[in-house]
Amino acid sequence: MTRPFCLPAIADPANPLLALQLQSLIDNKTKPLGALGQLEQLALQLGLILNSAQPELKQPQLLVFAADHGLTRHGISAYPSAVTAQMVDNFLQGGGAVNVFAKQQGIALKVVDAGVAADLAPHPLLLNCKLSYGSQDALTEPAMSKAQCHDAIKQGIALVTALPGNVFIAGEMGIGNTSAASLLLARLGEVPLSECVGSGTGLDSQGVAHKTQILMQVLAHHSQAKGPFAALAALGGLEIAMMVGALIQGAHLGRVLLIDGFIAGVALLVADLLAPGVRHYAVFAHHSAEPGHAHLLQRFNATPLLDLKMRLGEGSGAVLAYPLLVSACLFLRDMASFSDAGVSTKHTHE
Amino acid sequence: MTRPFCLPAIADPANPLLALQLQSLIDNKTKPLGALGQLEQLALQLGLILNSAQPELKQPQLLVFAADHGLTRHGISAYPSAVTAQMVDNFLQGGGAVNVFAKQQGIALKVVDAGVAADLAPHPLLLNCKLSYGSQDALTEPAMSKAQCHDAIKQGIALVTALPGNVFIAGEMGIGNTSAASLLLARLGEVPLSECVGSGTGLDSQGVAHKTQILMQVLAHHSQAKGPFAALAALGGLEIAMMVGALIQGAHLGRVLLIDGFIAGVALLVADLLAPGVRHYAVFAHHSAEPGHAHLLQRFNATPLLDLKMRLGEGSGAVLAYPLLVSACLFLRDMASFSDAGVSTKHTHE
Repeated sequence: MTRPFCLPAIADPANPLLALQLQSLIDNKTKPLGALGQLEQLALQLGLILNSAQPELKQPQLLVFAADHGLTRHGISAYPSAVTAQMVDNFLQGGGAVNVFAKQQGIALKVVDAGVAADLAPHPLLLNCKLSYGSQDALTEPAMSKAQCHDAIKQGIALVTALPGNVFIAGEMGIGNTSAASLLLARLGEVPLSECVGSGTGLDSQGVAHKTQILMQVLAHHSQAKGPFAALAALGGLEIAMMVGALIQGAHLGRVLLIDGFIAGVALLVADLLAPGVRHYAVFAHHSAEPGHAHLLQRFNATPLLDLKMRLGEGSGAVLAYPLLVSACLFLRDMASFSDAGVSTKHTHE
Repeated sequence: MTRPFCLPAIADPANPLLALQLQSLIDNKTKPLGALGQLEQLALQLGLILNSAQPELKQPQLLVFAADHGLTRHGISAYPSAVTAQMVDNFLQGGGAVNVFAKQQGIALKVVDAGVAADLAPHPLLLNCKLSYGSQDALTEPAMSKAQCHDAIKQGIALVTALPGNVFIAGEMGIGNTSAASLLLARLGEVPLSECVGSGTGLDSQGVAHKTQILMQVLAHHSQAKGPFAALAALGGLEIAMMVGALIQGAHLGRVLLIDGFIAGVALLVADLLAPGVRHYAVFAHHSAEPGHAHLLQRFNATPLLDLKMRLGEGSGAVLAYPLLVSACLFLRDMASFSDAGVSTKHTHE
């Protein structure tokens, strides 16, 4: 059972006629054929997602989903759990990397408390969707009950429904969440766990070995949690489950999903398994330094726009890639064609 | 003789104290150590070039240097020479890819007629520095006389002197100029010519083979042109020589040189040989699909910010990378530090 409850339908953005029209527009711009490389494929994809030969990005929205993880009690992160709430506060004050970059790009940013293990003071930029003070310890019990996981997905859907714009970015903050993402990739992507585990926020090799050992035990403990919903509930976390719902709804609404790094990529994996087709709305922003990300990208046959060896999360890589999406739309709209500009085309013979 | 005339002095931007200060600022931002990857190295480099712990990019300027190439009579390009003047006109009308992207990023753009083989009508965005109606045919004579090459470099110096701002981008347009760039890389970079030659604006494999054969003869004809100035004059072209002067002067004035792709990279190679140290002011924007570019980047030990399989020139790759430079400066200035934000640092033991 891959659909435990009624999820929104995902339309297929494929449209052969529009694709032909877009490709013809791209090929007739005043440049050698294919000379804008990956930006041309991006323009085509954005046109199809937004169902227009003149796609225009409107009011891009970033939600940073924050939650804590019961697993952190086993020393699987370089930072203490308390940092999740501290970083949420930092985002609310505008001091995080993602704040700085989102402001630069004109991207609206709000923080979602999906399950931070602390009481957070109300703030205009904070959306209180707390389902629990952190997830449970997945080493001994499911990270979330099925009801909680269900609620998290529904909450993600509701959050995106309330957002304006046609571009959605899911960012995250949660000490321990590379562990949850590694577990989900290993289980659902059928990748050996050892190839899914990295240093996260900065473990040394001994720390990574310890993290891998703990996660191995977690996987074994939840050997029956095989489908995407069961795996998501068992392995966590709350912010990932909420991102899953958000991405599904973003695709349902026909928005561009600008996918950040490893954690957001894993949320997309779960979303696409629960609601097949979500992937068609995904633009892959950057290649994370987390080793599991390469497997994930391979699964989606994706080459991200940026590869800056970043491993920060928060949505930071997605926000940095955003201007390239704008450029792709702009060249499609504003560049002259050979006939507009009276420029000669290629030699046929010489 | 590597300095045929008096070139501006290039200061070394290395400053160990400032580097320590910048690194400490970067490391104390609220993120795991190194988590912003290449953006952190970029921030450090920009701080050193602009000699500030709070570098700020001001009034970025792009000049698109245009010229024709005598070699094109041998069928070494997929497009006819006439396209150079047509594309200049397209740039002046705002229809080129680089126009669209420069407008998006707020980068001022002017076009320099360094040697287009046509009379161009005056236009507010056109700087008339025409030294010749195209370069000579390098298969039988030097592409430029030494006096012309000297004048082109001086002109490039004068152009940048007159520009405001602290970021300079050299773009180019010239049917045949990947040939000139390949020749210069082969001669000055000591790379086998066959590894320097690519499809340019879109030759097929037969066309590339023909281009390689012609360029082989050109190299043999100018076997005595060994130093950077002699090679530049012999192998061309006018726009590349002017770019060389422009890059030297940009470095002399302590500006950030945002280097586009293959042609701009070759201009940097020549500039750095003529005036050692220019390379320290260079930020490598994108990895061109032209095969010679990989050799060039290796020589500079550089990993560009973008790798989108583009091969357009014009400065387009540099302009697309520009927002990343802005981001690097902004995170250095505006992100909170651990102590500002009251965020816990890494575990020492757990």
